[in-house]
Amino acid sequence: MFESAELGHKIDKASYDAEIPKLRVALLDAQFDLAQQASFPVIILVNGVDGAGKGETVNLLNEWMDPRFIQVHAMGAPSDEERERPPMWRFWRALPPKGKIGIFFGSWYTTPILQRVRGKTKTSELVQSIDQINRFEKMLTDEGALIIKFWFHLAKDAQKKRLKSLEKDQKTRWRVTEADWENYKLYDKFRKVSEHTLRETSTADSPWVVVEGTDPRYRSLAAGRIVLEALRKRLDHQVKARLLKVAPLQPPIDQLDVFDTLNMAQKISKKTFDTELEKYQGKFNLLTRDPKFRKLSVIALFEGSDAGGKGGSIRRITAALDARRYRIIPIAAPTEEERAQPYLWRFWRHIPRDGGVTIFDRSWYGRVLVERVEKYCSEQDWMRAYSEINDFEEQLVDSNTVLVKFWLAISKDEQLRRFKEREKIGFKRFKITAEDWRNREKWDDYERAVCDMVDRTSTDIAPWVLVEANDKNFARIKILKTLCQQIEAAMKKRK
Amino acid sequence: MFESAELGHKIDKASYDAEIPKLRVALLDAQFDLAQQASFPVIILVNGVDGAGKGETVNLLNEWMDPRFIQVHAMGAPSDEERERPPMWRFWRALPPKGKIGIFFGSWYTTPILQRVRGKTKTSELVQSIDQINRFEKMLTDEGALIIKFWFHLAKDAQKKRLKSLEKDQKTRWRVTEADWENYKLYDKFRKVSEHTLRETSTADSPWVVVEGTDPRYRSLAAGRIVLEALRKRLDHQVKARLLKVAPLQPPIDQLDVFDTLNMAQKISKKTFDTELEKYQGKFNLLTRDPKFRKLSVIALFEGSDAGGKGGSIRRITAALDARRYRIIPIAAPTEEERAQPYLWRFWRHIPRDGGVTIFDRSWYGRVLVERVEKYCSEQDWMRAYSEINDFEEQLVDSNTVLVKFWLAISKDEQLRRFKEREKIGFKRFKITAEDWRNREKWDDYERAVCDMVDRTSTDIAPWVLVEANDKNFARIKILKTLCQQIEAAMKKRK
Repeated sequence: MFESAELGHKIDKASYDAEIPKLRVALLDAQFDLAQQASFPVIILVNGVDGAGKGETVNLLNEWMDPRFIQVHAMGAPSDEERERPPMWRFWRALPPKGKIGIFFGSWYTTPILQRVRGKTKTSELVQSIDQINRFEKMLTDEGALIIKFWFHLAKDAQKKRLKSLEKDQKTRWRVTEADWENYKLYDKFRKVSEHTLRETSTADSPWVVVEGTDPRYRSLAAGRIVLEALRKRLDHQVKARLLKVAPLQPPIDQLDVFDTLNMAQKISKKTFDTELEKYQGKFNLLTRDPKFRKLSVIALFEGSDAGGKGGSIRRITAALDARRYRIIPIAAPTEEERAQPYLWRFWRHIPRDGGVTIFDRSWYGRVLVERVEKYCSEQDWMRAYSEINDFEEQLVDSNTVLVKFWLAISKDEQLRRFKEREKIGFKRFKITAEDWRNREKWDDYERAVCDMVDRTSTDIAPWVLVEANDKNFARIKILKTLCQQIEAAMKKRK
Repeated sequence: MFESAELGHKIDKASYDAEIPKLRVALLDAQFDLAQQASFPVIILVNGVDGAGKGETVNLLNEWMDPRFIQVHAMGAPSDEERERPPMWRFWRALPPKGKIGIFFGSWYTTPILQRVRGKTKTSELVQSIDQINRFEKMLTDEGALIIKFWFHLAKDAQKKRLKSLEKDQKTRWRVTEADWENYKLYDKFRKVSEHTLRETSTADSPWVVVEGTDPRYRSLAAGRIVLEALRKRLDHQVKARLLKVAPLQPPIDQLDVFDTLNMAQKISKKTFDTELEKYQGKFNLLTRDPKFRKLSVIALFEGSDAGGKGGSIRRITAALDARRYRIIPIAAPTEEERAQPYLWRFWRHIPRDGGVTIFDRSWYGRVLVERVEKYCSEQDWMRAYSEINDFEEQLVDSNTVLVKFWLAISKDEQLRRFKEREKIGFKRFKITAEDWRNREKWDDYERAVCDMVDRTSTDIAPWVLVEANDKNFARIKILKTLCQQIEAAMKKRK
């Protein structure tokens, strides 16, 4: 992949000087249209060999364009708030909104490549990172992002020459560190690992662009033109929604689904409830005060039929906890800032730090439930959501989050009974709206969506817990008990 | 202030049990109305003596109300992202939006009181903190926030008894730490400092409520009722805008203002410009790479007449810097999330960490300029903004921020010339809109607003730099030079 970038590309000063003014005007124009349309974000990744002009190019792009609408993110050492969350959290929080350009200097490629070069990871781990990156970038482009991935390259002797010449000049000497020479010694390994990574991550939607870094004029002009062309192409030819190539989901032909296996008649006596409630609330409380808990975090999410008892169950959990420890995130319509970002952004922003408990009252599953049934998004949007969600949850679990997903199931009759009851009781009046009655008419559609959701997102690492909730007390105990079990299991694994 | 809270208040079980169900329904009702109206945020501070039931009360409020609309913030040790910003940053980022309740467990009172009790600060420093707190809370209530400040109190012997009884019970033993007994030894000092602080911060808009903590039933019922009453009162009687008691601002009777002192004819030759530009860009670059710079941060804000040359000046600054080091914040209309917060919130969220440079293209001064002239806010809103801004800037400077405020002044004729020029040049077309022409018609109103702004916010710690900008090059050099000088001065001070 690097051959063409070792040919010694050059541009003479006259051609460069003639080209630049036009290029700048065109870039400013494109940037203006981008801001006006505000229909997609631009993500520029800057990676490559040390000394190949990465920093210079970033500075130049800022100089040529309007820097007010560019955000540059230098991904140095993570802060403590970042370290206590999945590695991708820092990138999610830095994603540019629609209409803006985000330049990542040091990107999600940096750590996987360097770790492998330094022998801190195995090839199999690199392969896994590559797979995750491909899925992440696919999600971004599916969400509409324009991704431009630059690799600035230098042949081995060119890098040596470049470092030496930087060292010679008093003005630039500071830029060459010992680490740079250490890296230089690893050049061959670095080239090999990078080559592999670039090959495996150069996809149709987000291909790599390798730019030879030896000649500043060539490098700058190439980078500028690539950005311009990518922007212009995207701005002028609005991407048509691609047709999804999967067959539509089919209901099971015998009409048997996971909910048929639930014994909805399960209930417990008031006495058993009182004993068990005290037992499991106490246990839960103790678990969160265990020193081992400080290395974990808990995300419990609640989905379920309307009037399924989410609120009541959540209160039984929080009653066991110190209020300083948990955070409840009720999911409502996305805000303006959230709408300018990929779908999962508004959930990423609420990921707890170590030792925290976050409870989602409804969740990212809205995409494949209400948004699917009510047609708030296209079929391909909710179809791709299944794997995006699985990827998201895998990252949570990988970073020591105990993720527990509850579906509170009630029968259609029980729902009717609860709706009527709610209408009668004063302080519950706000829990029942005309929308609830409308949703009820779509009971079958929702059931279909729920079954597909469970089929496609109940994974080994994050299985769905189906809760028979016709009896509220039975449900509450099952939920508390499950939470305790999962936390205990996670603690044992860490021993 | 604590006498009434040492009387041994008690509530018997029967009265308590009779009262609670009604109280809970009423609280839920009020909370529902709060969410529906979404016209103000509720901020509850929980402070007081250790063992007086602070944590229990927070948990109870969460149990009684709908915890999904309450955010509890335990203010423990600050994260590194928090430590590198003014101390109040962590509170600003945690403020609840309109319609929600934020409970601060450990508040802006905690550190000033404990530092004084432990002898780490002098009385004069406490007095200063108190003054800052009063101004901060006044800003919050002026912005519409409802603040409820709880102080849970225990007499000295009651505290001793409480700690001993917690220690005796195996279930609660963990809650008593050595630090608690250390604090107990300081009880008298703590009482004295707290009494002083409470007295000085109990204002008409945000009075303290002292609650005796000995009897859990009394304490809980009192807290619940106070929250209910405060909420209900505010919800049912929308606060009428108070009339501002200051006289309206008067233009100077001789029509002489600060702008008359500017020599707008100043200009420099192209040759001087080129030499000076290289000199000061180089100097600025070196300064930001000085190890001492890592303990500073820079905020440069740009205001000025339309077409005053803000963008061009900003580009001359950023051209001197590595793009990883700076961030430009163009100020546009506030987003939905920003509108649900106090005015200054949207600026606080962009405060840089140590070593960072943040450039505001327009700023918090919009309140006293465009919002005043265009009547987007009331007279009392912009009148109070002057002191709110001064308080804000004082905090920035106190936490080692070099704050430089530039006003780019051009003459009315020069503006006309630039407007016409912009209309002619293709890639500058987006810089001139119908709005610019409309604003121009209000030239005198804007000039009046600018003079008042300079008079009221050009302070010793953050003076305005008025830049004669009819000659763009003169302006650019003055700006770069000033920035260098101010950073050097700040570095010298830290030696």
